[in-house]
Amino acid sequence: MLKLGILTIGDEICIGQVINTNSAWIGKKCAELGCKIVIQSTIGDEKDIMLAETDRLLSACDIVLVTGGLGPTQDDITKGVLSDYFNTPLEKHAPTYDFLVERYEKRGIEINEANMTIAYLPKDCEVFENPVGTAPGMLFRKVDKILISMPGVPKEMKGLMEKYFLEIIKNELARRGENVQIFKTFQTAGIPESYLAELLGDTNSFINSGSLAYLPSYRGVRLRVGVEGDTSDKANSELKAIETYIREKAGKFIFGEGEVSLSSVVGRLLINKKKTVAVAESCTGGMLGAAFTDIPGSSEFFTGGAIVYSNEAKTSILGVKEDTLIEHGAVSEETALQLAENVREKFGTDFGIGITGIAGPGGGTEEKPVGTVWIGFADENGARASKYVFVTNREVNRELSVGRALWTLYERLLG
Amino acid sequence: MLKLGILTIGDEICIGQVINTNSAWIGKKCAELGCKIVIQSTIGDEKDIMLAETDRLLSACDIVLVTGGLGPTQDDITKGVLSDYFNTPLEKHAPTYDFLVERYEKRGIEINEANMTIAYLPKDCEVFENPVGTAPGMLFRKVDKILISMPGVPKEMKGLMEKYFLEIIKNELARRGENVQIFKTFQTAGIPESYLAELLGDTNSFINSGSLAYLPSYRGVRLRVGVEGDTSDKANSELKAIETYIREKAGKFIFGEGEVSLSSVVGRLLINKKKTVAVAESCTGGMLGAAFTDIPGSSEFFTGGAIVYSNEAKTSILGVKEDTLIEHGAVSEETALQLAENVREKFGTDFGIGITGIAGPGGGTEEKPVGTVWIGFADENGARASKYVFVTNREVNRELSVGRALWTLYERLLG
Repeated sequence: MLKLGILTIGDEICIGQVINTNSAWIGKKCAELGCKIVIQSTIGDEKDIMLAETDRLLSACDIVLVTGGLGPTQDDITKGVLSDYFNTPLEKHAPTYDFLVERYEKRGIEINEANMTIAYLPKDCEVFENPVGTAPGMLFRKVDKILISMPGVPKEMKGLMEKYFLEIIKNELARRGENVQIFKTFQTAGIPESYLAELLGDTNSFINSGSLAYLPSYRGVRLRVGVEGDTSDKANSELKAIETYIREKAGKFIFGEGEVSLSSVVGRLLINKKKTVAVAESCTGGMLGAAFTDIPGSSEFFTGGAIVYSNEAKTSILGVKEDTLIEHGAVSEETALQLAENVREKFGTDFGIGITGIAGPGGGTEEKPVGTVWIGFADENGARASKYVFVTNREVNRELSVGRALWTLYERLLG
Repeated sequence: MLKLGILTIGDEICIGQVINTNSAWIGKKCAELGCKIVIQSTIGDEKDIMLAETDRLLSACDIVLVTGGLGPTQDDITKGVLSDYFNTPLEKHAPTYDFLVERYEKRGIEINEANMTIAYLPKDCEVFENPVGTAPGMLFRKVDKILISMPGVPKEMKGLMEKYFLEIIKNELARRGENVQIFKTFQTAGIPESYLAELLGDTNSFINSGSLAYLPSYRGVRLRVGVEGDTSDKANSELKAIETYIREKAGKFIFGEGEVSLSSVVGRLLINKKKTVAVAESCTGGMLGAAFTDIPGSSEFFTGGAIVYSNEAKTSILGVKEDTLIEHGAVSEETALQLAENVREKFGTDFGIGITGIAGPGGGTEEKPVGTVWIGFADENGARASKYVFVTNREVNRELSVGRALWTLYERLLG
């Protein structure tokens, strides 16, 4: 396979001031083409480190994509390093110089020495005009290896990739005639990672030349299958066979493919079935409502809800019986049932969901430890509630509660 | 300075399916302590590459932090590689085994072979119990170098870092006594980045040997000051002078220091003043309630609220007048005022906040474009409302609405 490395230059990324979205974007686009992403590396604005890292990545990979360090200020070191590394001097690049003059004149910007340094480029490289900003892209060749340098501004990097470099990488893949690698992701929920792994069994029993990754989050586990083959057809036919196996074993936990969320799938199901939902939230405090309304067009199925954090609000706003709170407590099956039933009635919806639990860190007892959550669900046939005992972390308990509530509704919608 | 490397393991990061927020978080925390972040590297789930990269990072750095690849499934390779690299066999770690058994029993989860593989750890390493999840953290020593391995789930990584590893790194810094670099962050809100920059003026006029970074987010702008010195005292005294200048110029927009959130500052003020708040949310759909209840102990000041997404809910649940909705519309000053007043009355709180707006992408008109949001605020003196016109992105509009609502309450609490 064509091995690809991604090198990001910039102190701001190293010290976490800026999250590295460029590497993710490049990795995704190139993986989709069929490249193998061997390494993503980020270093600060330091010449020696950059020289060493450039050399290392070019040894380990066929193509290296570099972003950052191309601006007009002193801390921008990339051009100087590449000029040294490829042993080719910086000189004035006439087309870039004219392009800059024209652009600055058009925008009424005065031309100064600092902004014209952008037109001084390593002599032996191919130059690609920046369709979005000013600093051009550059392509260097060394025997059979390619290094591409782009600005770090995400829009400029994407502009250059889409206009020139993705095509060049695609052609390299075709020219070298190497293996392709394709990926497909299945979104699951309602089952913990280790159970899913048990259901599917030994990966080697159903995957020949590929990989299976379990990617857990609080809302579910993503299953990512990667398949390699000498042609795209061969890889796709193996992928198809793997998908059939996975769906046979664990199909009922798969709610979607690719980067889809459970809340959006539930929302679409509600719209298709012309059903509506209302929520009564205690420990989640509005998170379930926020998850539904995160979806554009959610007014078609989401009417609203009540955040009943205090016991008084549970009683006065949603009519939970005081006796229930005294006898069973706010975190109980009875309270969850009444929350779900009453919010459904009050908002006049098809479904009502009630969440009440002890998110922590305080409020736990021996009988009801932190992490105890009751989720009530009401429809035209009445109400039922399930108890969960999650973990000790407040944030995690709240996230898992939202995930289970969405899964409960999803299962009901699928019948 | 103490040289630190960050190694991320996982195909999902390489191929851009998941954005690497772990490296940013670790880089930031360790830079704040005074470490130099030499490299952040990301590689796939492949044994040979991981062995080589581990060796390379340990050669170039004093401390290497590794995240990912510690789960119970076959694609999780980290433990095996570290066991090989440090030449120490995997064996059953009794405390971890017992911890898992206890945790699973508590949660009523059946123990299977897959989830117990987590308890098999390299023999010669220090083990740190995971305060959030199951896979423990591990610390390896090789001469004067340290390698720390953590799970890739962000909350688990953060839990381990905050409970153990940041302290260990801090002690290493003190023990080695090298040049220090210190950072301090001021949290601001209620003012856009460019206005804040104008208020503070040219950075060089008040910072000698350091840096100032503006880090904008939807909830406000963080100001990060970095100062370097050969002693901690020298660096701190320059930092003090810079802080005095910043507070003189922009003090009223600074609501906190370090990683504190506006919602938690508002929550603390409410508790100190023994005041309570209720929320009426339309376009934010529960996000403001979720922000308040994100804070442990929020029941002391947060009573609850109503998510009134549909017009009918606004009328039936919170008594917004039908005439108002017909005459002025759901996104109007009048509706925002009634939402704030009525939710305050209904929940019997000191303050009521009402948010109604057009988050987008649909629903905009020429008169009320997408991004139009009215925020109402009610207290014992009556109610007032302010209009905002944000942007065209749904998510951003919802985040900015929550931010402005919190800032409104913050200003009121400070009088």
